[in-house]
Amino acid sequence: MLKNDLLLRAAKGQETERVPVWLMRQAGRVLPEYRATRAKAKNFIEFVKSPELACEVTVQPVDSLGVDAAIIFSDILVIPEAMGLPYQMIEAKGPWFENTVKNKTDVEKLRIAQADDLNYVLEAIQLTKKELNNRVPLIGFAGAPWTIFAYMIEGSGSKTFSKAKQFLYTQPELAHQLLEKITQSTINYLQAQVKAGADLIQLFDSWAGVLSEKMFYEFSLKYMSKICDALQPLVPVTVFAKDAHYALEKIAETHCNTIGLDWTISPKNARQLAPNKTLQGNADPCLLYADEKKIISETQEMLRTFGKHRYICNLGHGLYPDLDKEKVKLFVNVVKEFK
Amino acid sequence: MLKNDLLLRAAKGQETERVPVWLMRQAGRVLPEYRATRAKAKNFIEFVKSPELACEVTVQPVDSLGVDAAIIFSDILVIPEAMGLPYQMIEAKGPWFENTVKNKTDVEKLRIAQADDLNYVLEAIQLTKKELNNRVPLIGFAGAPWTIFAYMIEGSGSKTFSKAKQFLYTQPELAHQLLEKITQSTINYLQAQVKAGADLIQLFDSWAGVLSEKMFYEFSLKYMSKICDALQPLVPVTVFAKDAHYALEKIAETHCNTIGLDWTISPKNARQLAPNKTLQGNADPCLLYADEKKIISETQEMLRTFGKHRYICNLGHGLYPDLDKEKVKLFVNVVKEFK
Repeated sequence: MLKNDLLLRAAKGQETERVPVWLMRQAGRVLPEYRATRAKAKNFIEFVKSPELACEVTVQPVDSLGVDAAIIFSDILVIPEAMGLPYQMIEAKGPWFENTVKNKTDVEKLRIAQADDLNYVLEAIQLTKKELNNRVPLIGFAGAPWTIFAYMIEGSGSKTFSKAKQFLYTQPELAHQLLEKITQSTINYLQAQVKAGADLIQLFDSWAGVLSEKMFYEFSLKYMSKICDALQPLVPVTVFAKDAHYALEKIAETHCNTIGLDWTISPKNARQLAPNKTLQGNADPCLLYADEKKIISETQEMLRTFGKHRYICNLGHGLYPDLDKEKVKLFVNVVKEFK
Repeated sequence: MLKNDLLLRAAKGQETERVPVWLMRQAGRVLPEYRATRAKAKNFIEFVKSPELACEVTVQPVDSLGVDAAIIFSDILVIPEAMGLPYQMIEAKGPWFENTVKNKTDVEKLRIAQADDLNYVLEAIQLTKKELNNRVPLIGFAGAPWTIFAYMIEGSGSKTFSKAKQFLYTQPELAHQLLEKITQSTINYLQAQVKAGADLIQLFDSWAGVLSEKMFYEFSLKYMSKICDALQPLVPVTVFAKDAHYALEKIAETHCNTIGLDWTISPKNARQLAPNKTLQGNADPCLLYADEKKIISETQEMLRTFGKHRYICNLGHGLYPDLDKEKVKLFVNVVKEFK
């Protein structure tokens, strides 16, 4: 059905004519057309909750950057909200929760999110699938349970997430109860995304890097692994645990298909540690500040190092808002023209 | 001369009766007596510039925590200031520079700092040496050139340091000129610290982790290596490049004596990658939020994994201000009693 299924074939370990490419945060402020659509909504939450606007910005980078996949525009924090913990997105600051989780009562008060609670995302997926008209696959996503947990405890972003980690060290059993609830909510949500049309699912563990190896296995990977199991064999799953350089071998033992890499990981090491998985990444977003010559040479070097098989090209993190759209396009084209 | 020279012997690779222990940010807000001394100064800069107050807080943890070394109380940003780029420390926000470095003229305007420019630190070291009366060694320190550069370009802390990295990608030659100036300033400064009495020097590369492996070698390690060379054979040198997990083998090729590790690095891997160096670290500061039983068992496990030889116990990052002093003391005592 799909005219361009490079992403799905690469994720499944099948041969592809060329390396597929998409970009984290491609539906974002780097595109002038995104900023125009964003201006139609009163605030970020209203924007996320509008299936029409979400669909519009999801499709934009497929048209204007020529990427090989769309990723549904949404936010990882829709899960805490659906569980009973609403948030605001404060300009230039990031997410902020009026209430946070502190104790057993707080955990017990939270409900397990059901697909219905997130109908606006499911509608956005359905609309987008129609709009894409099978040009490229649509990626669905969710935050990893640990990352969601971290925001629910901390109440905002943090350099250290020391409150969230304090919770793990002082109330490990309660932490597991909450992580279990988040995991169940996320499974309900992602299974519904697949039913609505998502062709591949990515889990974002944005704050994996603040955990030690041991803590990551106990409080993060265990739950991501459950989610991978719950989505198999429906769709391929990508696990992106940012800065969890220590965990590649163990991530490769889960039932994910693809492992996302940040730019501190060497492609060669990753291939050795996860030979059975597709790899995704991992250019430094700041490379796209460089001149054209450097963007071309560094991107080609990265492509040669990863090799064409079992590889999905991307950055090692989301696009920064102040990057030049033309340079982003150049990056995409270098990948598409690579032989 | 020194009554307790465990730290220096461990750094030099000599046998020690027991593992030495000190803590990054031990002269800090975790101690009530620090907060009392801090209140005597109008602001942070005045505090840093007072040799008497700096001496007072440097000695406090030796008395009250029983650590095996003092580290001179100061700030890594005294170097930009001495080069002509003053900063403020804004409560709950961190450092802030009114002027930042943007172009060639800005780089040329900066002077190479001389020992005299930092007399207040040298005086603090002399005072502290007297006050310590040879009880334990005194550690001197500086920021790594890349980390200093990052603040000079960015003008404040940052999650991504994307402006500083943009500078590396777009003006690499100018970046090297500035890094060279910072390196010369730092060498002048550290050689003077040694002359004033510092027994060991630690370089803090706090923002190593935002760089890719290749960029780290080109823009950070090269300059830290120069500083190591300039301090040999005067005193042992410790390189702590936070989150530069990818670089252990190359750091081990410099003339440093000790490699500092954050808590995401496994002691076993570090031993394999840097068999010729002393290792320092690497408990998660958040462990000290846990109950006593857990602090004891996890600390003992870490000690067993590192082994008693060529090891200096520490955290993997600075103490967090809201930790309980008694638990910090417990950690120190567990190390000191370890057989």
